[in-house]
Amino acid sequence: MNLLASRSSRMKASEIRELLKLLDQPDIISFAGGIPDPALFPAEAIRDAYADVLGGGEAGAALQYQVSEGYLLLRRWLAGQMGKLGVACDEGNIFITSGSQQALDYLGKLFLSPGDTALVTWPTYLGALQAFNAYEPRYDRLRPEGRNMTPAAYRVAAAANGGRVKFAYLVPDFANPTGETLNRQQREAVLDLAGELDIAVIEDAAYRALRYDGEGVPPILALDCARSGGIDKARTLYCGSFSKILSPGMRVGWVCAPRHVVEKLVLMKQASDLHSPSINQVVMHRVAEAVFDGQVEKLIGAYRERRDGLLAALEANMPEGVTWSRPEGGMFVWVTLPEGSDATGLLARAVKEARVAFVPGSAFFADGTGRNTLRLSFTLADSCAVSEGIPRLAAILKG
Amino acid sequence: MNLLASRSSRMKASEIRELLKLLDQPDIISFAGGIPDPALFPAEAIRDAYADVLGGGEAGAALQYQVSEGYLLLRRWLAGQMGKLGVACDEGNIFITSGSQQALDYLGKLFLSPGDTALVTWPTYLGALQAFNAYEPRYDRLRPEGRNMTPAAYRVAAAANGGRVKFAYLVPDFANPTGETLNRQQREAVLDLAGELDIAVIEDAAYRALRYDGEGVPPILALDCARSGGIDKARTLYCGSFSKILSPGMRVGWVCAPRHVVEKLVLMKQASDLHSPSINQVVMHRVAEAVFDGQVEKLIGAYRERRDGLLAALEANMPEGVTWSRPEGGMFVWVTLPEGSDATGLLARAVKEARVAFVPGSAFFADGTGRNTLRLSFTLADSCAVSEGIPRLAAILKG
Repeated sequence: MNLLASRSSRMKASEIRELLKLLDQPDIISFAGGIPDPALFPAEAIRDAYADVLGGGEAGAALQYQVSEGYLLLRRWLAGQMGKLGVACDEGNIFITSGSQQALDYLGKLFLSPGDTALVTWPTYLGALQAFNAYEPRYDRLRPEGRNMTPAAYRVAAAANGGRVKFAYLVPDFANPTGETLNRQQREAVLDLAGELDIAVIEDAAYRALRYDGEGVPPILALDCARSGGIDKARTLYCGSFSKILSPGMRVGWVCAPRHVVEKLVLMKQASDLHSPSINQVVMHRVAEAVFDGQVEKLIGAYRERRDGLLAALEANMPEGVTWSRPEGGMFVWVTLPEGSDATGLLARAVKEARVAFVPGSAFFADGTGRNTLRLSFTLADSCAVSEGIPRLAAILKG
Repeated sequence: MNLLASRSSRMKASEIRELLKLLDQPDIISFAGGIPDPALFPAEAIRDAYADVLGGGEAGAALQYQVSEGYLLLRRWLAGQMGKLGVACDEGNIFITSGSQQALDYLGKLFLSPGDTALVTWPTYLGALQAFNAYEPRYDRLRPEGRNMTPAAYRVAAAANGGRVKFAYLVPDFANPTGETLNRQQREAVLDLAGELDIAVIEDAAYRALRYDGEGVPPILALDCARSGGIDKARTLYCGSFSKILSPGMRVGWVCAPRHVVEKLVLMKQASDLHSPSINQVVMHRVAEAVFDGQVEKLIGAYRERRDGLLAALEANMPEGVTWSRPEGGMFVWVTLPEGSDATGLLARAVKEARVAFVPGSAFFADGTGRNTLRLSFTLADSCAVSEGIPRLAAILKG
């Protein structure tokens, strides 16, 4: 029962379930789900790849058991992609997971004993908290915008809880839920802190490819490799995913990490589910080779327009005292209501009176604060949804 | 690092890796791998199902995120199958996993705290030990053939280790590695013991459909439902898998269990990998509906012939003092060498001198005993492999 020990985990799961129920109602305009637009999936390319693989000489291997680290050609392709991001590595540094959620679960299991401390931003990705909660950590607040505590202060607080600081987790590009991106100096500062604490950095890069404006910033792992002398000496574990670009339903993600970490993850995977589906890895490799870059371009075009539409509607409709992030990419806009507001109560009213849904922000705070914040996803927000939904939401806020 | 704490787990993983390396050598006749014959996969039916699903109106949903408990129509189909086995249940009692290995991992996580006791047979499925080892249990010996300790003795031994007995794990049909099947009385006795200890029973039914002779025995879960008054009052958690019948590479398995257990597993899955791949579940449902029964018949025909061939070759070639199981189904024959023999040493000689491979039996014993035993898999053993390989292995044993 140890997984279920954390009350906060239980609360959040039930909150999500309530939300999911709301979204089943057909007339709701939803800005809640953090999911890609299924109309944009490259379904034809995926269909063709399954047909090719299963119609040819590879069918037997693609339907058979395989090694826990994952399909070699996919790992090689990913190593090449990481190289383009400034991370020189090879397939021995790539570990295939069933989506990046599994990477977070395994890294939690690898590092955390009950009572240890994980550093996370306030707010952070809810799924990361759920994955880590299973290992019963304490959370302390990472402030990569430049107001971190001293290493000694983090250490003392962790020791007072009977454990040690084990890692810093963050989403540096177009974060879920805030949409914000860390600049290079902020990334270097995370590495400085991690070095002083001698802890790992878990870089969740789920949204990295979805940049709509501005200049790309190197991954934390690339900066780490540059200062540490190569990936096998790095402390950063990069979690990537095909979910936002090609398909979440195929569940293919990866970790790019020092070889000694990959070797531990492979043993974990062997014990926990043997390997991610062979067929999906073989197909993902073919699809990625064929359409990845074009698919990224297509998504950037579509999602940029939706982001712009949402930001314009917020500008035009929101009452004074409401502020929001202006993300350069990703899927989310983060809205802050006046101090003292309660977004969970607002959700109940918004659904009932305006038929509009979003995710209340407090779900993303490890300590349950942030009650005056909320997350809007724009990936499914076409101009119709935005021009109807945002004025209705604003009307409730004004009333 | 807690997963890697168990030395025995580490040894076994490295042993397996060494074995896998051996199997890469092209001239080796291998009875080692516990894998289905890829030539018998229903590749065409699977290819057609992927094409249909991805070419139709379901494509978006099949490539999208989905609920953690799994695809509704597959869960309903499985509930119907369980009904045919004497387990009246509905989709609320079915939880989809990424292969039954994931079920073992989750059940280990659900029940075991470090120091708790798990009851397993000596020998048992290696992958179960690997899954459970992550949660640092102690193992005690289950003897379903009728020489169990008293409940009090199990309890005292568990308490002396600082924990409690949490579950009994077993493979009642054509066990991996022994090939043996428990009769009805033995299954009832397991339930009696579990009742007296008030523990769960984990019934690993991976091979259940593959019966070549004799009468089927009801699943432990069916006997449990009959005595407890229905599945939601049962203590047995049934782990099923499509891996041995349709395809292991798609990674689809299931747990059939009381609703309150399914609900806990759903929360675990949400935190650990969100859900098993949507597309594979939709496709597996179609393929299972269309070809499951015919595929079982096809496999029974092919594997029965291979089992018979292997047993005849053992009879014709093995020296006195060597004995073996005569399984009514499944994939394995279990060989016992004369007392004092060392199957691990034999493997090294067999590979070098006879180019024949198998799995030494000690890997399957929680306490590392059983050094004079070995496992032969017959799923890939065509008449050629058997007529060449078994005489060569016997010659080494005689020499």
